[in-house]
Amino acid sequence: MAAYCLHNTSALRLNNPTLSSFSCRPLLCQVPRKIITMCRDQSSYCASITAEIEAHLKQAIPLKPPLTVFEPMHHMTFSAPLNSAPALCVAACELIGGSRSQAMAAASALYLMLAASVTHEKLHIPNRLKPKPKPAPGVCSANGPMFDLMFLDAMVPFGYELLAISDDPDQDTSGRVLRVIVELARAMGSQGIIHAQYQGVIVSQLDGGGSNNIELIDDMCRKKEGRVHACAAACGAILGGANEEEIEKLRKYGLYVGIIQGYTNRLGRKVKEIERVVELRNLALKELDHFKGQKVEEISSFIVGP
Amino acid sequence: MAAYCLHNTSALRLNNPTLSSFSCRPLLCQVPRKIITMCRDQSSYCASITAEIEAHLKQAIPLKPPLTVFEPMHHMTFSAPLNSAPALCVAACELIGGSRSQAMAAASALYLMLAASVTHEKLHIPNRLKPKPKPAPGVCSANGPMFDLMFLDAMVPFGYELLAISDDPDQDTSGRVLRVIVELARAMGSQGIIHAQYQGVIVSQLDGGGSNNIELIDDMCRKKEGRVHACAAACGAILGGANEEEIEKLRKYGLYVGIIQGYTNRLGRKVKEIERVVELRNLALKELDHFKGQKVEEISSFIVGP
Repeated sequence: MAAYCLHNTSALRLNNPTLSSFSCRPLLCQVPRKIITMCRDQSSYCASITAEIEAHLKQAIPLKPPLTVFEPMHHMTFSAPLNSAPALCVAACELIGGSRSQAMAAASALYLMLAASVTHEKLHIPNRLKPKPKPAPGVCSANGPMFDLMFLDAMVPFGYELLAISDDPDQDTSGRVLRVIVELARAMGSQGIIHAQYQGVIVSQLDGGGSNNIELIDDMCRKKEGRVHACAAACGAILGGANEEEIEKLRKYGLYVGIIQGYTNRLGRKVKEIERVVELRNLALKELDHFKGQKVEEISSFIVGP
Repeated sequence: MAAYCLHNTSALRLNNPTLSSFSCRPLLCQVPRKIITMCRDQSSYCASITAEIEAHLKQAIPLKPPLTVFEPMHHMTFSAPLNSAPALCVAACELIGGSRSQAMAAASALYLMLAASVTHEKLHIPNRLKPKPKPAPGVCSANGPMFDLMFLDAMVPFGYELLAISDDPDQDTSGRVLRVIVELARAMGSQGIIHAQYQGVIVSQLDGGGSNNIELIDDMCRKKEGRVHACAAACGAILGGANEEEIEKLRKYGLYVGIIQGYTNRLGRKVKEIERVVELRNLALKELDHFKGQKVEEISSFIVGP
């Protein structure tokens, strides 16, 4: 029986709240944790930030009542494919001279929202939406897409909560935090990921799924990975105290990083041979000309190959 | 063909952006706009606030590109059953001495989130999750639960965006707005509506759907309608500049209003005969003892019968 089995095990896990003991995993999340970005392959800097964001999130999503909601939310968060946008948010903050902790809540919120979004997208695939047969009496029924959708719906507000409570009135950060909430809401909403997902479904219904149309691929990469990485870098810059020029330069840098990652996600290793990707890499590095110091090398590791 | 038909009509509607001309409505939203709360029946005060929130939202959700996302989002927002919690948010702000406009963004955000939540809940019902057959070539395919889910996902971040952009730095409101974002995120998330929805599904699988168990009904009303109305009233109080004692009194008032409305939603008119509802009404009115003036009468109209 593949199910959350929360009714049967929640009491046990209340006394032993480690996810390493999570033996009863939801169906949807049993896919391997595929790394869809170049982050871990290429840069120990990116990987170290991602590890820190995950540690922060593991503390932030408490295993507390209602366990029936918190436990699968915790599990879904760390089962989604990795994405380098949250790490880029922290890297942009550090480039500006901010501390890692200043961008940690925003990066964690973005990590949560992206995990919810990618898992939601899987549920949008029609054959996943078929309801499961009603379980026999006495059998745990807390499984299937109906519950997955509910738990995903809990992850998004939790992201906004994390961000809003990170405000430190003594440091006069409220304005920056509110601006970042607007940035995230736009990137994750109707002008961002949702629009890209909608277009993705329409494109997938074309002959060959649009996979041979480079202009279509470029547009998809820009609207999806590009938009999210642009938002991530801009948020890091805002939280690090950047001026408007720096914010816009980092937004553009993030856009190029994201488009390159979009190509990588769609085309794999052969992406290096594509002229457009070389061009994007040069455009990205040009945006960093404005900045100085060791952190320039670190943030450029998001696009420079091994 | 019942569908959004966005591809065919978006150009037309770009030149004629009124929703009154919306003739091609999504399947999910063709249910009548059932009034599930007592708001419109009982109180012109509540109804006038609700009308103002809707007018505010109609301006706030622009019919702009991408119309494929904004248009159904607009439609879904105003097709969901009405809920009196957003109006209570404004009423609490006015009771404290604040202006209607101070709570308008929060009330609008709550209106959006509740519309998304109730529509999502309908989609959770298993037989609505069956995918539609693939349309014939050339036929508009932008219909069905897959797209409904996407557009609903866009409504929640838009709510947070509305709230965050409402901050007026000149009025030093950032701290209040951030606090309201936390309140809303908790009420709409894992400790609020999502937990109540989860419990609702579990209870519905009991013999008779738990409809004869008054303790179970009370618990459901408290966790769902009670939690949301408590949050709404507390948010209005925060934005109106209430002190902590006043915020907690209005939170309790909202809780009782919400529980009563929960009973009404489940039991209809016969709710007036239930001793527990009389008790809740008295408890609610007691919380208002602390406040003075004409606005006490207005906010008490949320629970006093015609």
